[in-house]
This record gives sequence, C-alpha cells and structure tokens, in this order.
Amino acid sequence: MDSAVQAAPPPTPPPIALDAMGGDHAPKEIVAGAIQAFREHGIPIVLVGQPRALVEALSEQGAAAEIPIVRAEETLAMDEGALASLRRPRSSIAVACHLVRRGDASAVVSAGSTAGVVATGRLRLRGIKDVVRPAIAIVLPTRPDPTVLLDAGATADAKPEMLVQFAHLGAAYAETALGRVNPKIGLLTIGSEGGKGNKLAKRAHELLSADPGLRFAGNVEGHDLLTGQVDVIVTDGFTGNVALKTMEGSVRYAFAQLRDTIGESRLARVGGLLQRSRLRELNRRLDAEAHGGGVLLGLTATVVIAHGSAKARAVSAACELAWRLAGQDIVTRIGDRMAALPRSHRLW
Amino acid sequence: MDSAVQAAPPPTPPPIALDAMGGDHAPKEIVAGAIQAFREHGIPIVLVGQPRALVEALSEQGAAAEIPIVRAEETLAMDEGALASLRRPRSSIAVACHLVRRGDASAVVSAGSTAGVVATGRLRLRGIKDVVRPAIAIVLPTRPDPTVLLDAGATADAKPEMLVQFAHLGAAYAETALGRVNPKIGLLTIGSEGGKGNKLAKRAHELLSADPGLRFAGNVEGHDLLTGQVDVIVTDGFTGNVALKTMEGSVRYAFAQLRDTIGESRLARVGGLLQRSRLRELNRRLDAEAHGGGVLLGLTATVVIAHGSAKARAVSAACELAWRLAGQDIVTRIGDRMAALPRSHRLW
Repeated sequence: MDSAVQAAPPPTPPPIALDAMGGDHAPKEIVAGAIQAFREHGIPIVLVGQPRALVEALSEQGAAAEIPIVRAEETLAMDEGALASLRRPRSSIAVACHLVRRGDASAVVSAGSTAGVVATGRLRLRGIKDVVRPAIAIVLPTRPDPTVLLDAGATADAKPEMLVQFAHLGAAYAETALGRVNPKIGLLTIGSEGGKGNKLAKRAHELLSADPGLRFAGNVEGHDLLTGQVDVIVTDGFTGNVALKTMEGSVRYAFAQLRDTIGESRLARVGGLLQRSRLRELNRRLDAEAHGGGVLLGLTATVVIAHGSAKARAVSAACELAWRLAGQDIVTRIGDRMAALPRSHRLW
Repeated sequence: MDSAVQAAPPPTPPPIALDAMGGDHAPKEIVAGAIQAFREHGIPIVLVGQPRALVEALSEQGAAAEIPIVRAEETLAMDEGALASLRRPRSSIAVACHLVRRGDASAVVSAGSTAGVVATGRLRLRGIKDVVRPAIAIVLPTRPDPTVLLDAGATADAKPEMLVQFAHLGAAYAETALGRVNPKIGLLTIGSEGGKGNKLAKRAHELLSADPGLRFAGNVEGHDLLTGQVDVIVTDGFTGNVALKTMEGSVRYAFAQLRDTIGESRLARVGGLLQRSRLRELNRRLDAEAHGGGVLLGLTATVVIAHGSAKARAVSAACELAWRLAGQDIVTRIGDRMAALPRSHRLW
C-alpha cells in the first residue's frame, strides 16, 4: 500500500432529521432520544418542530447547546391520516423530508402516525424509479438470524405485482442492512401450498414463482413468522400490520399470563424472584428488537418510522438504525432490482 | 307443580359424527379422542372412516365394543383443498355430513384440512337462509371472559356485506354458547378510527355502524385480540387465519425464549425448576383453549373443525364442544338475525 498518498477523510454525512412532534410522547421523549443518540452514539441530529417547546425540553436536560433545531410550526396529530399531510406543507414531518430532499439531512426519523408519515414521505421525497408503492419493513427477532417482514402498513390495498416489488425491496434490505446473500423469500398466506390463500396471495404466488431475480421459497403461515425459515416475508400492508400487532399483543399476553401464574403459587413465586432479572432482560430484548422501528422502503431517502409509543430509548434506536442505513447503497440496489423486473410483472 | 303428570324424558340426541380419517394423527389419535369423550364425558360418538383401520385402533385400546363405526372408504388428504370434496362424495367427512343431514347424527367433528371440511360442509349440509358464506368462529382465551374471533379461515375473499353477516353469526354464537347478552362487536383493522384500514374494512365499518341489530363498538387492532375489549371480533377469513396462527406462533415463541433465558443462568434455572409445573399448566390451558376447535357457522348443523395437529385430548374437547352446541338454538338465532338484516346490507 502506498501510505504516502493519504486520501482525504470522507466528508461526514449530514445529520438525521428527527420529527420532534410525532408520537404519543412527543416532544419530551423524542428530545430525550435525540440527546441519547447524540451523547451515547455520536449521531448528529436535527430536531424538527416548534422551537419554543423544543428549547424547553432540551434545556430541562441541559442539552440546549448540543442539538440544533429547525422550525416547523405545524404538527400532524397521531389520529390524522394521509390527507392531513397534503393540507399541512409545514408540518414537522414535511419539513424533515424537505431537509433530506435539499441534502441538509441524511435520513428522516418519525414516531408520528404511520399513515401521515407514509403519505408525507411519498409527497415530499422522490420515489425510486418504477417502484409503484412503498412498503414498511420490520425486522423480526428470529434466531439465529433476524427476518424481514414487509409490508407492515404502508400500502393497505396492494396488487399482486406490488407484492413482487415488495419482495425485491425486502431482498435489497436483507442484503444491505443484514448482510444476507441471495435472501430466501416467503409469501405470507393461509395454507402451505401454492393454490391456497385469497386471490391476492394466489396470484402473487404465481408471479413470485416466475421471477428469476428472486429466490422464492413458497408460502409461509402465521406461525412461521418467528421461526426464521426465510429471510424475507412478503405480504400486503393490511395483513402485515395486523400480524405485527398481533405478535406484539400475544407476546405481551404470554408474559402477563406467566406473571399471574407465578403469582398464584408460593413455591413458584420464590422461583420467579430468582428469575426476575432474566425475565426483565428478555422482555427488554424482545421490545427493543420489535420496536426499533419500521423502515419505509421505495423512496430515494431513508425514512425510519418508530413505534407511536416510543420513548427515549426506542427513539435513539430508531436514529441509530437511520444513521446506519443512510450510509448504505440500498437505494441503488433497489433501483437495479427494479430495472431487472420481468416485463410481465409491471403494472405501469 | 303437578307431579302426578310426569313428562316423558327428552329423547337422547343422536351421536356426534366424528371424521376419523381427518388430521395429522388420524386415525389413531382421533379414535383415542373418541374413546376419551365417550368414557369420560358420556358423549355418544360414531366414528366415520375405513372400518379395518378403525377396528384395529379401537381394539388396541380395548374399546371395540364401545364406539360404533360407519364405513367411508375415501379420505380427503390434509393437503387437498375445496375441489377434492366434489370429487369424493364418499369421503369420511362427506359421510359424516350425510349422517347429520339424515338426522342420524347431531353434529360433525373433523380435524381434516380446513378448506376440505368447509367445502364439504357447504356442499352436503344446508346453509341457513340468506347466509351468503359461512365463517369459522374461534374462542380466544381472554380474561375475564373469552372473545369470539371470526372468520378464522372459511371465506378468504370476503365482501363488506359478508363481514356484517359474520358479525351476526358471531353475536349469535356469543349469545348461545357463551351466554353473552347484547354482545359488543369489534372490526379488526389497522388504526383505530373508522376511516382506517383497507377498502374492505372501511366499507365494512360503514355497514356495521349502520346496522341497528348490532352493538358495534368500532375498530380493534391486532394487539387488542387478547385484551378482551369486545365480545366478538370480525374480519375476513384470510386476515383472521393469519392473525390466529400468528398468535399461536408468538405464544410458542415467547415460551421458547423464556426457556432459553432460564437455561442460561444457574440461579434462574433453580427458579425454573420450582415453576415448571405451573408453566406446564399454563401452557396446557392456552393450548386447550386455543385448540378446542373452530366452529363453522352459517350452516343448519354444527360442524366443529379441530386443529390439524389435534391429539386425543383436543379431539375429545372438540367432541364436547360439538355436543354442547348441538343442543343449542344457535341456528334459529342466526336465522332470526338474518331475517332482520337491513335491505341495504344484502348482497343477494
């Protein structure tokens, strides 16, 4: 190696634009998450929102000098849907997208309403050529390797051709973010044979089978979501969102039942005390992994959607995820896959 | 009371027709379940299937003289779908339906493929007037009272009007089988407001809201399935089946993770030993309640569909459920509700 010629250090990428007004615990927990991401992981953050509220929240935690603020006077409420994003061009999420579009931020993070974030992202950021609809990818905590589930709620009414695109989006994500080589794709449906499911799933099965650019492994069912049989699980945004929330609710239910059961017996209670710290650890791990955030794929910039109930730790995790993804070539990878799609699989 | 005039004892209802050839563990575990239901609960059973195999299985357990057999030489395989039921008029499930139709059995129980059982039931048993499509109801183990989820897989491609009918089927089930008065109905979708979800859910929300015969409580999401907020949760058969299986898989996953976590630490392991019997109990309860079986609603006879992996205990539980339901006026109740449906809600 010629160490005499030293390359200039790569320029630091611009900061993460964090929508400080989105989420059940905004702005306080969002600001706390920003501080955590900056202090503990050195991730540069810009908070986007109402300056007065943000200065106050930053000051409370002695961080007024650490995190810059970009003004956005409007806010999308958690119960507002896609239409509100059209009506509020100066909402915190819209301004965050604008910063990325202008090159002043690397990626967007928001814990706002999924419908609002998706609609604003589609409106304010450019889509990748040929991608008809975006999809939200979630990483499920399967062992030994995690599984990508998409769409977790961006496109509730999908067409079969869109599911094929989602398969490519998920494959690109598994390749870049998880380092998976030639990822195995499964289609979420009911029944394990090709001819089973609703009309959407049956037609998607045919199209997925006929795409030489995909390693399609066939159908998977609801109970396969957490067994790690495939690398990417594809479904429409309605089914994916129901499945994801059912999963969260069921794990919570199982632990609650366990606590009750342990509480009923004195002997078991003693055992429970001994295990308590382990259980807490496990709970934290399942939580962190499940709630790290969904990634909106199909746009030319990274948008991470944190759980609406995200508190500081989850917000910080979402910023870490966005920072990590922003440096990767996932957009190029998706573009290449779209260019190679069979003609027959195109809707446009 | 005039005790001099004694009413004749009510005639014993005819037996349960048990499809002995359906299920992953047929016929052995099915036969064992029949014996258990008969010996432990006094439920009269007729086994329907290949006589030679059934006599052998009965003899092995010293029960050849206890349970009668009705011959059916054909069998629907677990991976066969709806079409096979047309091609095999003498399959064990078809013959079981025929027995009910003739009045020689009170109800059908099968652990065969859901698609096959549904198709055969629709073909061989009469539908209730005006019910366009049947639905499978599952009772979820919520506390303090169980919740009915439907459709769990009978009708994968549903129309909004069908979801309204499913709400009535579920309400009738909650009233008769669970003794619920004026049951609260929830619609499974993504997002809690009326305008959220896919097209099917949005339109169903409008129709459910406009039906004076229903106590519609609005939308529920995936994480509400096990919280017991409503008495009946309505969805299409595709989403319902994915949700149900996701639930089963997630609970299994949570327990497996817990076992691993306990195994990692010596202290926690000691605690685990103390708890083991409690955990086993809990597992059994969740299992039994979830796997008791689905009930196919909308036909003029009771059909209980046990889990494909059902073993003796689950088969016996399904027979108990069928026996209990056969004595109730659920069919009349559904008929009354259909007759009262608003004209605008009809598809036919």
